[in-house]
Amino acid sequence: MRNPVFNLSPDSFDGLSETNSLPPRGMGKVCVYSTIPDPTCGITLGMEVPSSVESISVILATEYWGIFLLRDRKFFPAIKVISSETLMQSREDTANKVLQDTGAVLIPSFNDGHFISFAIVNFHTQVRIKPFAQQTPVLTSDTLDSIAGRKLYFKCECFQKGGAFKFRGACNAIFSLDDDQATKGVVTHSSGNHAAALSLAAKLRGIPAYIVIPKDAPKCKVANVKRYGGHVIFSEPSMQSREDTANKVLQDTGAVLIPSSNDGRIISGQGTISLEFLEQASEIDTLIVPISGGGMISGVALAAKAINPAIHILAAEPMGANDAFQSKSNGRITKLSEVNTIADGLRAFLGDLTWPIVRDLVDDVIVVDDKEIIQAMKLCYEVLKIAVEPSGAIGLAAVLSDGFLKNPVYSECNHIGIVLSGGNVDLGVLWNSFDK
Amino acid sequence: MRNPVFNLSPDSFDGLSETNSLPPRGMGKVCVYSTIPDPTCGITLGMEVPSSVESISVILATEYWGIFLLRDRKFFPAIKVISSETLMQSREDTANKVLQDTGAVLIPSFNDGHFISFAIVNFHTQVRIKPFAQQTPVLTSDTLDSIAGRKLYFKCECFQKGGAFKFRGACNAIFSLDDDQATKGVVTHSSGNHAAALSLAAKLRGIPAYIVIPKDAPKCKVANVKRYGGHVIFSEPSMQSREDTANKVLQDTGAVLIPSSNDGRIISGQGTISLEFLEQASEIDTLIVPISGGGMISGVALAAKAINPAIHILAAEPMGANDAFQSKSNGRITKLSEVNTIADGLRAFLGDLTWPIVRDLVDDVIVVDDKEIIQAMKLCYEVLKIAVEPSGAIGLAAVLSDGFLKNPVYSECNHIGIVLSGGNVDLGVLWNSFDK
Repeated sequence: MRNPVFNLSPDSFDGLSETNSLPPRGMGKVCVYSTIPDPTCGITLGMEVPSSVESISVILATEYWGIFLLRDRKFFPAIKVISSETLMQSREDTANKVLQDTGAVLIPSFNDGHFISFAIVNFHTQVRIKPFAQQTPVLTSDTLDSIAGRKLYFKCECFQKGGAFKFRGACNAIFSLDDDQATKGVVTHSSGNHAAALSLAAKLRGIPAYIVIPKDAPKCKVANVKRYGGHVIFSEPSMQSREDTANKVLQDTGAVLIPSSNDGRIISGQGTISLEFLEQASEIDTLIVPISGGGMISGVALAAKAINPAIHILAAEPMGANDAFQSKSNGRITKLSEVNTIADGLRAFLGDLTWPIVRDLVDDVIVVDDKEIIQAMKLCYEVLKIAVEPSGAIGLAAVLSDGFLKNPVYSECNHIGIVLSGGNVDLGVLWNSFDK
Repeated sequence: MRNPVFNLSPDSFDGLSETNSLPPRGMGKVCVYSTIPDPTCGITLGMEVPSSVESISVILATEYWGIFLLRDRKFFPAIKVISSETLMQSREDTANKVLQDTGAVLIPSFNDGHFISFAIVNFHTQVRIKPFAQQTPVLTSDTLDSIAGRKLYFKCECFQKGGAFKFRGACNAIFSLDDDQATKGVVTHSSGNHAAALSLAAKLRGIPAYIVIPKDAPKCKVANVKRYGGHVIFSEPSMQSREDTANKVLQDTGAVLIPSSNDGRIISGQGTISLEFLEQASEIDTLIVPISGGGMISGVALAAKAINPAIHILAAEPMGANDAFQSKSNGRITKLSEVNTIADGLRAFLGDLTWPIVRDLVDDVIVVDDKEIIQAMKLCYEVLKIAVEPSGAIGLAAVLSDGFLKNPVYSECNHIGIVLSGGNVDLGVLWNSFDK
């Protein structure tokens, strides 16, 4: 049995961003057949699954991972990803088998006018950034395990190039630009770690990075940007001023805007954390990730759920910037009029791309105060022996908080992966003390 | 051709510590045939090679490594280690081949009254400590590479159990005790890291550890000992008081003394650093190791030279406690009347076991001052993002010192492995600053 629609070649694919309704012949079961050769971006947000659809099988060559569909604006869980070999023949054969087994309707491709588009994060991202990014180590500590009453695994993204996980997304974004786009450079406005990461990735590609930084950013973060060759342009602290300044640079230079979180290339890049982490410690049943703009947790959640759909994804958020917690409670993106936390990397708000993923794939947001963050930071230095910034230590703070330890919901979370997201912190007071 | 002396069984071996002269039939070339089944200690210092001996071939089953012989109290370099399979037959066949090829005299075993004893550090140590010790990660940094003008590899022993490399030796020592010895516990006098490590290893074996600590030791080190269940007994700061107090504990308890450096079990345990490091980064051509009592650098040098005889071994030592530098210059163990350095872990002196190894296998001692140590520590925190103690950062200080960078001897050292030995440092001033 050979279906003629299989004759579509990969060349006929022209993008993941199209959206469409199911074909009129739509039935309860659907088989999606991917011809995606190598989407530049690596992720597109999933669109609505009509209520008539019961389940979806997706045939993907094994290098792809991370599927995300929505129904009624919620994550659609009844999806089965079936791996095939990369060869077109294998994909076709596998799809045919599913059709025979399930009686599903075939959705052959992404550009024939009747398909469900979906989110896909792929291994090409991992391959793309591999020559540049560090595979960061995972540390464990019996001392912290006994404090937490659980086995903890620490993914040390503070050791990532540029001192934070941000390099993964920045690197993916920059190396997925075509040469014409890349020549004019990139621009962003960032509180720091994304800025440093983008500067470094741009330097590696040999293109300019224009970085708009609010005047009140920590000195060490500005220094990082300069160290990596970024062109620093200061703005006022307000988001309006930051955006206006960035727009002016865009107009002046023709550079490409690379947002820090709300961007498919960024989300896909950060998702490589899960790929490494769950290979390094496959027994992990729960991931705890700092949340700010939601780029990291979106990528981490998509990739982790693709590998292990039963995995718990928890966000850790500071009390003084708890927009994600409020957004989840309100069922819509909720922004704050002001933020106040020592965790300077966690002051951004969710965006329209990250919000649906956080809403549907993040099981809970654990809110901690600054005192808990500092205590966790201290444990990182004194027990783990690593230098983390406040934003980086918040995952450990969440695991040690009453909100987590005393909640019976989490009693089954026994193997917890914590992303220590960054280590760019100003320790001037420490060095001054040695001069005495 | 089968030599009857091969009929000695492994059971006839009764210890590595015997010493003897060459047999009367001694000739210029010697073939040593090892029947060592599993020396508990893993290392015995080599004894004199008579002047009549030109070269020595040693047949060892592949699980052994680290050969060390002396002539005129100097390392005897004309030694060739030939690996065989573990099976006795293979060792015999290999030895026979050497005899045929070289016309050497055979020294069949270690207990027949006429042999050369030698130092041997073995893989059994690695197997013994593996269930307990961390395989610490190796970090790299483009930023530090460009400062140093070389490729640097950082072995993060600050992530070792107990916060320092000391756990390797302590663990080897404690788990090589037989049950009768072990029951009565262990005792040591230590400035801190060895004490914590010994406490932890003793706890893992379920035996008591009695720790004599000078009153002026940093608080965090005392806290570590207590955290790991060690019984703390304070002494005066002087070495005499420390030794007297330890001797009293020995008499009272019948415990086994485990010195911090000058001990074969300790040296062998620390040697596992090289085994891991050179497997993680085989391109390393130079190792830089902090030196204090010399236990770590002895083990590191023996193991590294066994793997790659051409490797450079450099010691890093603080100006205010430069006894190893002076000892090398004077050609004899030289102790200092007082020491003064921020590197509190590097105040001990070489011992009679570590000195010959340092004298003959350590190519040079690079001396740095406290200011250079603090600067290196800062780079570890701000660039590598790891919390090291002053003693732990000294290897980086040495690589960045004029004494190293401007010495043409080191121009060929391009892939440098630096052991960041520990991370137990009091950061109270940092945490106090957050309370403001």
